Amino acid sequence: MSARPLLALTMGDPAGIGPEICLRALGNPEISKACCLVLFGDAGVLRRVAALTHQELQTETMSLRDIEKREFKCERPVVVECSRLPENEVQPGKLSAAGGRASFDYVESAIRAASQGRVSAVVTAPIQKEAWRLAGVNCPGHTELFTILTGASRSCMMQTSEALTVTMVTTHVGYTEVPRLLSAERVLDVIELTAQAMLEIKQSLPKLGVCGLNPHAGEHGLFGQGEEERIITPAIERARSKGIDVEGPLPPDAAFLTHVRERFDAIVCMYHDQGHIPFKMLAFHTGVNVTLGLPIIRTSVDHGTAYDIAWKGVANPSSLFSAINVALRMAASRGASAAHYAGFHQR
Amino acid sequence: MSARPLLALTMGDPAGIGPEICLRALGNPEISKACCLVLFGDAGVLRRVAALTHQELQTETMSLRDIEKREFKCERPVVVECSRLPENEVQPGKLSAAGGRASFDYVESAIRAASQGRVSAVVTAPIQKEAWRLAGVNCPGHTELFTILTGASRSCMMQTSEALTVTMVTTHVGYTEVPRLLSAERVLDVIELTAQAMLEIKQSLPKLGVCGLNPHAGEHGLFGQGEEERIITPAIERARSKGIDVEGPLPPDAAFLTHVRERFDAIVCMYHDQGHIPFKMLAFHTGVNVTLGLPIIRTSVDHGTAYDIAWKGVANPSSLFSAINVALRMAASRGASAAHYAGFHQR
Repeated sequence: MSARPLLALTMGDPAGIGPEICLRALGNPEISKACCLVLFGDAGVLRRVAALTHQELQTETMSLRDIEKREFKCERPVVVECSRLPENEVQPGKLSAAGGRASFDYVESAIRAASQGRVSAVVTAPIQKEAWRLAGVNCPGHTELFTILTGASRSCMMQTSEALTVTMVTTHVGYTEVPRLLSAERVLDVIELTAQAMLEIKQSLPKLGVCGLNPHAGEHGLFGQGEEERIITPAIERARSKGIDVEGPLPPDAAFLTHVRERFDAIVCMYHDQGHIPFKMLAFHTGVNVTLGLPIIRTSVDHGTAYDIAWKGVANPSSLFSAINVALRMAASRGASAAHYAGFHQR
Repeated sequence: MSARPLLALTMGDPAGIGPEICLRALGNPEISKACCLVLFGDAGVLRRVAALTHQELQTETMSLRDIEKREFKCERPVVVECSRLPENEVQPGKLSAAGGRASFDYVESAIRAASQGRVSAVVTAPIQKEAWRLAGVNCPGHTELFTILTGASRSCMMQTSEALTVTMVTTHVGYTEVPRLLSAERVLDVIELTAQAMLEIKQSLPKLGVCGLNPHAGEHGLFGQGEEERIITPAIERARSKGIDVEGPLPPDAAFLTHVRERFDAIVCMYHDQGHIPFKMLAFHTGVNVTLGLPIIRTSVDHGTAYDIAWKGVANPSSLFSAINVALRMAASRGASAAHYAGFHQR
């Protein structure tokens, strides 16, 4: 059997829908054929959720120390036991510091494994940011943790789906803060990161669009402070001079019309809602979140913990399956056998 | 035959697709059954376009002076001859000062007719703003002209379709100018205008949603300058105390998901692209633009002059037909016979 890449999957907040969608991934034969999943989570929680949601749990359980030894077979999915959460502390839909601490530990351990080349990519299930805060974790979320722990010098958020792929020049900042964060350098960085990622995902040179900031992309200076002329157009021209096929600034309200967006492999957006409004409309269940610019590959589901339906077996795993697929495509492109070189035995 | 309302229709820029879509409306039997169209335009241009696009032109032609006399029958659509454009000055797709001046005159005459109660509403075909400028017209567009000439104290833009209706607290201003234009008073004005218009269009008390300004509607103060708490929430509360059924602030990227937007009759947006991005995605061909807050009814197509396909007979009239329908619904609600009282004989 040819070597399958090892993919780290983090279980997310134990009280959310993370455990049950991870179980769905572990039990999916197509995913098992394509890769070996290494789930960073809690075997006790998984067993409880498996029983409640009528799923099977056929895995090999290992300790954090075991994976350091670098020697294991991957005949079935592996659960790396990062925590042992007491039953009374983790209940479905119940926010807890213990759950927050545990979900932080899963991600931290998975990032370390990826940074050491033990796994080809990290795919994350949703955490509860409030639980991280309760646990005293001084980090707002996944993206920031990945950026800090891997020492990435530039990064950005991508959201990708069959229908649309967008990247963001600015993301989780207030409306008024966006303009001062825009610069030709930053726009160029995001264009370059987008081009690189789309090359990895699509295996061919991508065509990119870039949105303007103002209504009608400023309509030749009629609206706005000339951000299109001063910042966005120069970035596009510099990207072109580097060989990137990129067009813009596009009027934002026209960029997401079917006949316009279909001309592009990805569209670079200036702010959160410029990209998130059309993306969620087109890919609510199947969207994948990718952090670009990291030395490791990180993809994620594009939804939250959904406490209200946790542990009921009704959560839709489509976004997680898509996140695994995107991670596999990117890993294949970067050289799927990286993890193999690190010493794992794979079948 | 019961009295049909008289509807003013302006022909728009003569070199664009306005004339041919107006001809489609004039020749549509269902529209003729529902109302009597009074087209403010140029009979010579209409004849040329009718010949080129293989349409019939069966109308009664009148002068501006005739309509002042207040006495005419409406056995067939009426063309009010506002200009006589020389053939060599108006060619399809060719920007001209003469066309700009003429299209301005159509709108001005129609507004006067509506303000005098001679017609129940004004429906506008697209103008070319650059042509108005060439003609020395010191007014940026339709909406501003209607607001000025009718002396409206508060107004806003609405875009409506079967799938989605949005209104804008701010519209044609740059990205950075939006925050200083937001106030609880302005948001409340737009909520009230939206509620009134939806009552007229739907004939029942509407349910409204209001978007936040920041990503995730600020996520409890995490993003932004507290615009949701300081401005939007107080406006919503004041609207509720006036009996309006309104909810928000909604996270903008969730507001346009099918299962969310379907809960509302209209969604109030803080800025141009927050509303225009989802609206154009859902209603590119059928959207109608309505100016709210005027003493008269004004609806419009939601597209431009499309110079590239003008006079070829391929322009899609759906948006104009929808604009006529919305104007008729609003006119019925305000009392369809207003024009009748002004002295027209109708059949």
